[in-house]
Amino acid sequence: MSLRAGVVGAAGFAGIELVRLLLAHPRFQLTAATSDANAGAPIASVYPAFTGVTDLRFCAHADANLHSCDVVFLAVPHTAAMDLACELLDAGVSVIDLSADFRLKDAAVYERWYGTVHTQPALLAQAAFGLPEITGEELARAAKAHHNGTPALVACAGCYPTASSLAAYPALATGMADAGATVVIDAISGITGAGKSPNARNLFCTVNEDAQAYSVATHRHTPEIAQILGLRERVVFTPHLAPMNRGLLSTVNIPVHRDAALSADDVQQAYAEHYAASPFVTVLPAGTFPQTSSVCGTNRAQIGVTFHEQARMIIAVCAIDNLGKGAAGQAVQCANIVFDMDQSAGLDAVALPV
Amino acid sequence: MSLRAGVVGAAGFAGIELVRLLLAHPRFQLTAATSDANAGAPIASVYPAFTGVTDLRFCAHADANLHSCDVVFLAVPHTAAMDLACELLDAGVSVIDLSADFRLKDAAVYERWYGTVHTQPALLAQAAFGLPEITGEELARAAKAHHNGTPALVACAGCYPTASSLAAYPALATGMADAGATVVIDAISGITGAGKSPNARNLFCTVNEDAQAYSVATHRHTPEIAQILGLRERVVFTPHLAPMNRGLLSTVNIPVHRDAALSADDVQQAYAEHYAASPFVTVLPAGTFPQTSSVCGTNRAQIGVTFHEQARMIIAVCAIDNLGKGAAGQAVQCANIVFDMDQSAGLDAVALPV
Amino acid sequence: MSLRAGVVGAAGFAGIELVRLLLAHPRFQLTAATSDANAGAPIASVYPAFTGVTDLRFCAHADANLHSCDVVFLAVPHTAAMDLACELLDAGVSVIDLSADFRLKDAAVYERWYGTVHTQPALLAQAAFGLPEITGEELARAAKAHHNGTPALVACAGCYPTASSLAAYPALATGMADAGATVVIDAISGITGAGKSPNARNLFCTVNEDAQAYSVATHRHTPEIAQILGLRERVVFTPHLAPMNRGLLSTVNIPVHRDAALSADDVQQAYAEHYAASPFVTVLPAGTFPQTSSVCGTNRAQIGVTFHEQARMIIAVCAIDNLGKGAAGQAVQCANIVFDMDQSAGLDAVALPV
Amino acid sequence: MSLRAGVVGAAGFAGIELVRLLLAHPRFQLTAATSDANAGAPIASVYPAFTGVTDLRFCAHADANLHSCDVVFLAVPHTAAMDLACELLDAGVSVIDLSADFRLKDAAVYERWYGTVHTQPALLAQAAFGLPEITGEELARAAKAHHNGTPALVACAGCYPTASSLAAYPALATGMADAGATVVIDAISGITGAGKSPNARNLFCTVNEDAQAYSVATHRHTPEIAQILGLRERVVFTPHLAPMNRGLLSTVNIPVHRDAALSADDVQQAYAEHYAASPFVTVLPAGTFPQTSSVCGTNRAQIGVTFHEQARMIIAVCAIDNLGKGAAGQAVQCANIVFDMDQSAGLDAVALPV
Repeated sequence: MSLRAGVVGAAGFAGIELVRLLLAHPRFQLTAATSDANAGAPIASVYPAFTGVTDLRFCAHADANLHSCDVVFLAVPHTAAMDLACELLDAGVSVIDLSADFRLKDAAVYERWYGTVHTQPALLAQAAFGLPEITGEELARAAKAHHNGTPALVACAGCYPTASSLAAYPALATGMADAGATVVIDAISGITGAGKSPNARNLFCTVNEDAQAYSVATHRHTPEIAQILGLRERVVFTPHLAPMNRGLLSTVNIPVHRDAALSADDVQQAYAEHYAASPFVTVLPAGTFPQTSSVCGTNRAQIGVTFHEQARMIIAVCAIDNLGKGAAGQAVQCANIVFDMDQSAGLDAVALPV
Repeated sequence: MSLRAGVVGAAGFAGIELVRLLLAHPRFQLTAATSDANAGAPIASVYPAFTGVTDLRFCAHADANLHSCDVVFLAVPHTAAMDLACELLDAGVSVIDLSADFRLKDAAVYERWYGTVHTQPALLAQAAFGLPEITGEELARAAKAHHNGTPALVACAGCYPTASSLAAYPALATGMADAGATVVIDAISGITGAGKSPNARNLFCTVNEDAQAYSVATHRHTPEIAQILGLRERVVFTPHLAPMNRGLLSTVNIPVHRDAALSADDVQQAYAEHYAASPFVTVLPAGTFPQTSSVCGTNRAQIGVTFHEQARMIIAVCAIDNLGKGAAGQAVQCANIVFDMDQSAGLDAVALPV
Repeated sequence: MSLRAGVVGAAGFAGIELVRLLLAHPRFQLTAATSDANAGAPIASVYPAFTGVTDLRFCAHADANLHSCDVVFLAVPHTAAMDLACELLDAGVSVIDLSADFRLKDAAVYERWYGTVHTQPALLAQAAFGLPEITGEELARAAKAHHNGTPALVACAGCYPTASSLAAYPALATGMADAGATVVIDAISGITGAGKSPNARNLFCTVNEDAQAYSVATHRHTPEIAQILGLRERVVFTPHLAPMNRGLLSTVNIPVHRDAALSADDVQQAYAEHYAASPFVTVLPAGTFPQTSSVCGTNRAQIGVTFHEQARMIIAVCAIDNLGKGAAGQAVQCANIVFDMDQSAGLDAVALPV
Repeated sequence: MSLRAGVVGAAGFAGIELVRLLLAHPRFQLTAATSDANAGAPIASVYPAFTGVTDLRFCAHADANLHSCDVVFLAVPHTAAMDLACELLDAGVSVIDLSADFRLKDAAVYERWYGTVHTQPALLAQAAFGLPEITGEELARAAKAHHNGTPALVACAGCYPTASSLAAYPALATGMADAGATVVIDAISGITGAGKSPNARNLFCTVNEDAQAYSVATHRHTPEIAQILGLRERVVFTPHLAPMNRGLLSTVNIPVHRDAALSADDVQQAYAEHYAASPFVTVLPAGTFPQTSSVCGTNRAQIGVTFHEQARMIIAVCAIDNLGKGAAGQAVQCANIVFDMDQSAGLDAVALPV
């Protein structure tokens, strides 16, 4: 039996990727794709990849019968999800939120980093954090509650936190890392991460043939990474832009205790074991490191890891598609879990080999 | 019941795209992927997009039990397919050839353009030309013969001929074109079209931030286009390279009789009607023209067309993925037809919207 | 003695390239770079390539003392140059106009293609067309008049007309071309040609990994090409976009009389002789064709040409930098001529070899 | 009076950039550009940017009269420079070496990282390290010795060490850094850094739309960075590739003493003062960070810096052109110094603004 799914903010980059995934999903049926700016326009007129594929049109938010949905995906800017999620949950609709509104458990942290009041702090405790390989238990509880009639609220992890946390987690969870040391993360993202609104920063001629760092020491994904990994203020995160549409590579430097007896093989094995059962995360053979192109268009993550003995540093590199595992793919994976499906349903795409 | 499929030359760009399509195909089962240069290596070690997807390895050509296949796809350079196709057909195996060896019906033309003797001229008449939207009848005959026990030989159209012919065909087939005039075709291809062997021409630093024409007045796809469209020597074809991996755009200029009463609406309508029943070819609304990114990774083609009244010229533009509809996708489409499946089987991919 | 030069519209792509060239010019001294949108801002804050190079700031148009300049370059959209040029000429200031306002000799043609009334039709006859390799005599007259005290008005050729006309001119000027036949031009441009205003079409994610045709049969450079080459309505021009910042490649197909005795050598030689004395235009050896990257950042043009004997077609391909020879470089070249300097002054840059 | 300059390995990417710079240099006169692989070929036939610019040809190494040169630039792979430098010095010719052969002061370190014996260890002490903003005194000594008749040997810094050291040096030199802590460096390079020899890694289709780390924990520039900054084994360096021709961005994380009273303003001011007199290094205003495109084609470096108070970390980002300040530009700068010229001679290029 199919499940009715809506996407709010369907004309944005994460939104349209959700549309693409849901149109091909075995059980979710896309019943509403809202975009006030494009209301009434065929999806194919805005995104010509859908020409000949679907006649579906964007609809105005006010016209979408979201309360009739089983699940609604919110692909909206932060602040826009807070009250809307509350309203949908009240109507019995499960919410998969791709915004930042329910990611941080502490409303004060949210308000400090996002510079705005959180209007639904009571929902923060209820929200399951959506990064299944790390927060599987939270999601399992949400699935069970949903099974018992309580609509779910999932706060999907951001793109940088997803890749960075997948890379760092085994080192921290296994106790190999020096618990008091600072983790340094440098990440590179494709430009879809900057969103769809045209401005001087995401113009072709600005981005092409260029690499740059941005939001140095101030990026809002920092507290999210710290929360997932339990690092408090011991994380330094610097995002960079590279001239590509999709793809996110996070290089994570995790100090190891001076006295820990640890080899590169130990680290490799610990990582491989940690993700052995994960359908979407692959730890590469020792000595190899991932390319973002290998996961483009998919919900997959690839991780390479090594141990720098002299410097006592684990270096782990994770590649994802910022719109896939970093956004829409992960959202669908979380929804699959909440609705008791195989978490891989509709997510079996393989990247183009070249 | 599944059908056993082999790919010869599986480590090349068209070959690996075949591998990707066949691994996800509902009926073809990939049983052999040959590459002498990579024999024994996991496919994923050469194309890391397959990491975590398949454990399949490339095998040496000599070790592949191709005679046990129902169908073998030949993704090899010209000359390498001639005798191999003959051998496979003799063994009762159907052959879908992506090389140029059986495309030209006249061995003398082949020998003039390719500078080598054709060793299997007797097979030229037997080969069905693989461009289903235009040569559907040839393929239907091959399917019928195959049904009756005769293995099929399909000579799949080249990438430029596919896009150029799809763009030009309705104008010529409906008699709108000036039968004696020269058709001018300028096309742009992504760099996968140049193949996988590293050389100074397909280096990143050579191709990036550059556009150029090549093989001006001498490209071997010229006689193939002429044959499909019945143009003899009345075709001028200039291919260009642009800095992108995939994508092929062909802009075709077709002169119209000076006295023909014709409007842009007439042309638009003729094109739309011509391809109305085609699952893979979409004629865009009047005034819109295709982008190669809209069909990347798919077997689709998008066509825009207009009529330049003062110059009496139909201008038609067709976008395909050179490795999709221009190579591996079309090969699978042809195999689907030969084996009496829905021609769309395994070919329902939609391009990434961004 | 230095000459005072102003740039109006200095924050646009052609404008900032003029700034770059004038800052390094041996005689022109940049005294005003206007941009109302960026008035007061250091040029380096908008274009960080100038960081550490110049402290110059953009100024508001109203605050620029343009009447004190010897020459003013207008890098403005069409319609914005008409009255401004008139005013500057009245004040005795020479004008090098990069807009389309004075390119078309016939105001009616301007009004038909640009959809607006020409407010200064009397100046059209006075304007020298700025494409020195073809309109050298017009520019020499303007230089002479300037020498005698009359300020000059130069209407610089557009980017597509520059490359297309340089490619076609020798064939037409020498009488090799079929005078009654239609010339088909397909050109590829980098994205700087689309200007600096952010919109959905010049976003990185729209342009990257994509090729497309645009303004098919309707591009405003069509009548300009027709005027330069004397083709009236016998020109079909289709521009395309490729994912690169700069660079413009024009492939021109010129039919030859059915009976003309002509060889590829004849054509090669005619082209080589035609441009033998030109410091900026190089005809490549027979069989070689240009790359846009070879002229990036320069005022140079490279041309490759061949003769397709069967189809009786001269195919000439010209590469320029759309912001160099196609805009700012050519404007400086024209100004050099008007002010009696070596036309190469300040224009000796060589493209990065890789 | 002009000085005779030769380039060995002139057809490589650093070599050809040297050719470009020397052809436009006010005093160095390029008398030999060697390339055994391209001996006899016009430079313009290999690098068409030089078409119409120079008729110079590559010559075989054996045919180049290098002993008649005043200075020879060695743009060769490591090991190839050792004996050649010795021979040239013996002949009284100054050597500017772009290879790694004389960078590491300790032959044992060289042999460990490069896996080969150093055949000229006696020259290591003599070689001046070529990173003028940091090793100005070494170069001044070399210049003085050269003035007194001793030919100079300069070991130019590698590309990553140049950017990384420029970013880190002020923090370390001023004592702000925690002397015992590990410095984490993540850098991104364009693909010219991978050299010109075609292989599967520098193919367009491999690199395009991809980011990846490589040589993790094993890159040979690590000991060079450690030597310049006096870090011994306290440096973790991870290089990455991004899809662009040129450009190198190094993000350096430098821990600060837990108890140091330090503000972001202090750090900003210290950096600005440190490079105030440097013609090529610009420290950007507080809160701004560099783009590689801003220095493309130049010998410039731009640095942005901030202080992450919670994590007690100075984060400095430096952008250079890996072939400019990271190779050929720096080599010319060093040669200028050795030959008592203004260090900026021939190096005044500004990046294309877009």
